[in-house]
Amino acid sequence: MNFKVVLYVLGGLLRLLGLFMVIPLGVAYYYGESLTPFLVSIFITTLTGFLLLSFKTKDEWMRKEGFAIVALGWLAAAIFGAIPFMLDGISPLNAIFESMSGFTTTGSSILTDIESHPKSILFWRGLIMWLGGMGIIVLFIAILPKLGVAGRQLFRAEAPGPTEDKLKPRVKDTARILWMVYFVISLAQVIALLLAGVSLYDALNHTFATMGCGGFSNYALSVGAFKSPLVEYIITFFTFVAGANFALHYRAIYIDKDYLLKDEEFRFYTAIVLSASGLLTFLLWRDMGTGLFDSFRLAIFQVVTIITSTGFSSTDFNLWSESAKMVLLIVMFIGACAGSTGGGIKVVRILILLKHSRAELFKAIHPRAVKSVKFNNKAVPDEIISSIISFVVIYLLIFLTSALILSVLGMDIITSITASIATLGNIGPGLNVVGPMGSFDPIPPLGKLILIANMWIGRLEVYTVIVLFTPEFWNK
Amino acid sequence: MNFKVVLYVLGGLLRLLGLFMVIPLGVAYYYGESLTPFLVSIFITTLTGFLLLSFKTKDEWMRKEGFAIVALGWLAAAIFGAIPFMLDGISPLNAIFESMSGFTTTGSSILTDIESHPKSILFWRGLIMWLGGMGIIVLFIAILPKLGVAGRQLFRAEAPGPTEDKLKPRVKDTARILWMVYFVISLAQVIALLLAGVSLYDALNHTFATMGCGGFSNYALSVGAFKSPLVEYIITFFTFVAGANFALHYRAIYIDKDYLLKDEEFRFYTAIVLSASGLLTFLLWRDMGTGLFDSFRLAIFQVVTIITSTGFSSTDFNLWSESAKMVLLIVMFIGACAGSTGGGIKVVRILILLKHSRAELFKAIHPRAVKSVKFNNKAVPDEIISSIISFVVIYLLIFLTSALILSVLGMDIITSITASIATLGNIGPGLNVVGPMGSFDPIPPLGKLILIANMWIGRLEVYTVIVLFTPEFWNK
Repeated sequence: MNFKVVLYVLGGLLRLLGLFMVIPLGVAYYYGESLTPFLVSIFITTLTGFLLLSFKTKDEWMRKEGFAIVALGWLAAAIFGAIPFMLDGISPLNAIFESMSGFTTTGSSILTDIESHPKSILFWRGLIMWLGGMGIIVLFIAILPKLGVAGRQLFRAEAPGPTEDKLKPRVKDTARILWMVYFVISLAQVIALLLAGVSLYDALNHTFATMGCGGFSNYALSVGAFKSPLVEYIITFFTFVAGANFALHYRAIYIDKDYLLKDEEFRFYTAIVLSASGLLTFLLWRDMGTGLFDSFRLAIFQVVTIITSTGFSSTDFNLWSESAKMVLLIVMFIGACAGSTGGGIKVVRILILLKHSRAELFKAIHPRAVKSVKFNNKAVPDEIISSIISFVVIYLLIFLTSALILSVLGMDIITSITASIATLGNIGPGLNVVGPMGSFDPIPPLGKLILIANMWIGRLEVYTVIVLFTPEFWNK
Repeated sequence: MNFKVVLYVLGGLLRLLGLFMVIPLGVAYYYGESLTPFLVSIFITTLTGFLLLSFKTKDEWMRKEGFAIVALGWLAAAIFGAIPFMLDGISPLNAIFESMSGFTTTGSSILTDIESHPKSILFWRGLIMWLGGMGIIVLFIAILPKLGVAGRQLFRAEAPGPTEDKLKPRVKDTARILWMVYFVISLAQVIALLLAGVSLYDALNHTFATMGCGGFSNYALSVGAFKSPLVEYIITFFTFVAGANFALHYRAIYIDKDYLLKDEEFRFYTAIVLSASGLLTFLLWRDMGTGLFDSFRLAIFQVVTIITSTGFSSTDFNLWSESAKMVLLIVMFIGACAGSTGGGIKVVRILILLKHSRAELFKAIHPRAVKSVKFNNKAVPDEIISSIISFVVIYLLIFLTSALILSVLGMDIITSITASIATLGNIGPGLNVVGPMGSFDPIPPLGKLILIANMWIGRLEVYTVIVLFTPEFWNK
């Protein structure tokens, strides 16, 4: 592997991160809060960035460098992004947990008294989610398909030309277009929230968390703090949008608005959201005695925020009936659409696996018939199905291992299961101890380390991190 | 589909079932219990059998008839086998639940006061597990591979000749050999239990339940009732044996004893059992304060009985610590070896999926390299992997659907999850309400119907039942 290239790119990334830290510095200045945390963070981050940039090279990244840059890039961002939290008095492990949770747009939090922290720190906590979301979009649509992970088709990026080992060409163009879409939709949400009477600070923070499918709120009660059905519906809508493919949004906005509705994944995603919300509405009405309209509002908000891996809450769903919680638990495993800022297994993978199983049933009866799986009217190549399977297998293996370790560390079964899937799927809150009004702070240090790894692995589509731990990666 | 052939074969099956009912009739006579339940059952079952046999035909069964015979055969056995329970005063739904649980060697029970039932009824309840186990062996080794389900290689039956649509040839020979092995091992267990001081009646009942990987005991305390570590170890050993491939047992006994140890699935199965037992020993010692030797005995007994889908209990593991229960919960999803009488996803499928994922990771780094998955030193064809995937997908889908329905019907999350997997994986007990000292009786009627379907579907390797519900099956 060419370490120089990797370090050089990481240097550029850190320099950029240092630059972004100027924004919360401005917020700190505006609110008259201490400037020290951000001044020190900017200094350390930028300096490290420039030091690494001294490895200047004209070498191209190849496949291995691509994996290393993505995996280490997120890790470096999480570590340097944690400095402001540490300077705010949060322990290093907790600070890195919170920062990783932000950059991976997870939204699991170790904070126990959110409102006690300075506004600039909470703003940074929100901003890194928005940045993480940006990173994810470019990762999914421009980088991963070229690394051959999960296949380009899954993300419908459809960049022309064959898959190449060289990563540079066209990545910047694609990224620029997608960021523009990301920015435009974000702006629309800020304006909508302002019109609904939300303050600019709250509107920005909640837009950051929505667009990145992250879910950090600057209120302990999360979106519930607004006590406004309108705000809940606005956030539900934009969360739903952020959980869909941004490449499709681009085409829907600039080319033909039918693009989204014609997409099989988007249709299946909509169908799951509507049916889960419908069931949950019924259960809240039946079990909790909530009125039908309120039940629907609570249900669709919570289903959308969980399936997209955002993880806001408009109420303490940990107090819901067991059947209502079961709906959320199942939805946690599905995840958002490919090419969105959301996490999880992803709707398209589940859809293709279901179609594949359906075709296999057909084959059981007609063993000589040839029936290929189609997605958006195109045959899905076997290697795509093959990679989806190994993705799901590794995903479930990591989920089970971390759930087992958490329970050995003393957490109850429901907490262990939901904390693992909530971090691996980049969702945010789980149930019981790590419920929406709870915190990840009570989890023992080893457990936190594992959950940090879960967020990192889950966010980078599993492969990108896991390959770094195979001997083949380090062999010549 | 040729209905005549199907009905004719079912007729033969029922006639045989009627014949087997003579055994509990003898038990009833010996213990001076009422003969009516069995006399009536024998009359109804045999009469129906003879009526169906009037569809005499020389037609061959083809693929579709094969599926129908297997699926409807188990269903018919469950329904007619339930007659003695109904005549004992058990409600029809509960009787069919118990009978399906027996024939599928599940071991989930709706009985709330086991010892209050006549000995002959409990004997029948045990015997149907032994018969179910016999059926499973012939199904897995002789029928399913020929139907192309999951592929012959998975079961290492290695019957000569290509897969054919015609089912008859060689099936009888293979079945006869395997039943001999089954009978010999059963006899060994009966003798071992007798030598350990167990009564003949108890020895037979527990051997039936062990060899079928079923788990019905004639005591409410299950194997715990013997209060004998020796008996526990004997049952642990034979359960472990019943959870391994009977085709391998045949070769190990009659050809070369190294056959088992050379088999990758058997080795992985042993490794899982030992590591799970080791972890569980530690957890019982740490969390429950049990001595190390007792912890080991309890741990290995429970791990073996759960992984093989037998589902005996030597203690109320529902009272164990959350981490200990978590180990059991994970083991529930693994299942026994292919070609055994055990249920679940099966070790070989998990092993191949893991190997496949490992190969995919290699491919991510070396995309042009060709690396095939090997099992027992032979390359696994893609269509086997393909069928494993769809098996697991449909399996998990049924699991989630039934867990969701149970929770909607008012069961708590842990009960819903474990009751679903315990029936689908043909294990027996779960946790909470359906724990080892609990019963499936409190589950609402709709829930019981779904769990009956789970047992049926899970036992017949999913496909065999599910294809009957596809339109292709009924098209010309």
